[in-house]
Amino acid sequence: MHYPEPISKLIDSFMKLPGIGPKTAVRLAFFVLDMKEEHVLEFGKALVNAKRQLTNCSVCHNITDKDPCFICDDSSRDRSVICIVQDAKDVNAMEKMKEYRGLYHVLHGAISPVDGIGPEDIKVPELLKRLQDETVQELILATDPNIEGEATAMYIARLVKPTGIKITRIAHGLPVGGDLEYADEVTLSRALEGRREL
Amino acid sequence: MHYPEPISKLIDSFMKLPGIGPKTAVRLAFFVLDMKEEHVLEFGKALVNAKRQLTNCSVCHNITDKDPCFICDDSSRDRSVICIVQDAKDVNAMEKMKEYRGLYHVLHGAISPVDGIGPEDIKVPELLKRLQDETVQELILATDPNIEGEATAMYIARLVKPTGIKITRIAHGLPVGGDLEYADEVTLSRALEGRREL
Repeated sequence: MHYPEPISKLIDSFMKLPGIGPKTAVRLAFFVLDMKEEHVLEFGKALVNAKRQLTNCSVCHNITDKDPCFICDDSSRDRSVICIVQDAKDVNAMEKMKEYRGLYHVLHGAISPVDGIGPEDIKVPELLKRLQDETVQELILATDPNIEGEATAMYIARLVKPTGIKITRIAHGLPVGGDLEYADEVTLSRALEGRREL
Repeated sequence: MHYPEPISKLIDSFMKLPGIGPKTAVRLAFFVLDMKEEHVLEFGKALVNAKRQLTNCSVCHNITDKDPCFICDDSSRDRSVICIVQDAKDVNAMEKMKEYRGLYHVLHGAISPVDGIGPEDIKVPELLKRLQDETVQELILATDPNIEGEATAMYIARLVKPTGIKITRIAHGLPVGGDLEYADEVTLSRALEGRREL
């Protein structure tokens, strides 16, 4: 490429992001040149601040700018229920629903023997520590509905079962607005399995 | 969204970029959190530097970090030919070819009466000024092969013709590697029109 150094550096930086190839990176870099200077400064500051100011909440391991995070710190929330999710984006998905009022525990991954990720590599030990004081009465396993997510849910369920805490798994079935015709066999079989009397 | 402020600001910044919607912005922002701090700092610096250090070359109006730009400053290049392009990305496309050794003139747009863009709004007056010293012998019109690009080429051709400078337009025809079957009528008619004896 024959761009002056400042812009080729910016193109390189954009290309480090996932899903952004050379052509998109060039387009984005040139777009930045046409942006207002204040917006570009804001963008630069946002990048550095996001990296520097965010940590994991010491209680639930969700990303946060203060510790404990605003969810763990919210005294109006139900401390007897913990919803276990794989990552911080899942917390946001749950919160958008505006129905769940319990706490969370972010595992930062799932057990995956193929990739050499065991329970010690995700926040399972931290979860067990949280369960020691006896306020928690229910664990909702909301790990992803795939092999790793299922394995992680199973593992945690077996581990926690002896403590007597109620353990539930979010339901699998047809997505709302979906089409039965296009559902895969596994989803359909899960939907049938999880049928409820009306 | 229920993200802490530093990350939601970063998501907002990403969403200002073209072609990046809310979901991609979230994905990119979380990716940044997992990047090495030095890379994030580099990215932030690259943004600000690109915006602050780059200007337009006072001769050819290409983007550059020093004035005149490295092309105008290169004494080995042929100063008798100027290739006229619409924007700085086009200069890069020409340079990648590694065959053209003349100079450039970046118009920063094309004439478009519909959008209220006239010759005075793009770098046409600056071009005329450049043509006053008599070193230039050929103008290659490499504006885009669309209505605005054609109109701009025609306008410049008519304007410059009386000075006696040779004016050429890059060829239109079938793209190399393309398929005649799928060529549109206009391209095909131009390809036929521009046929050459072998």
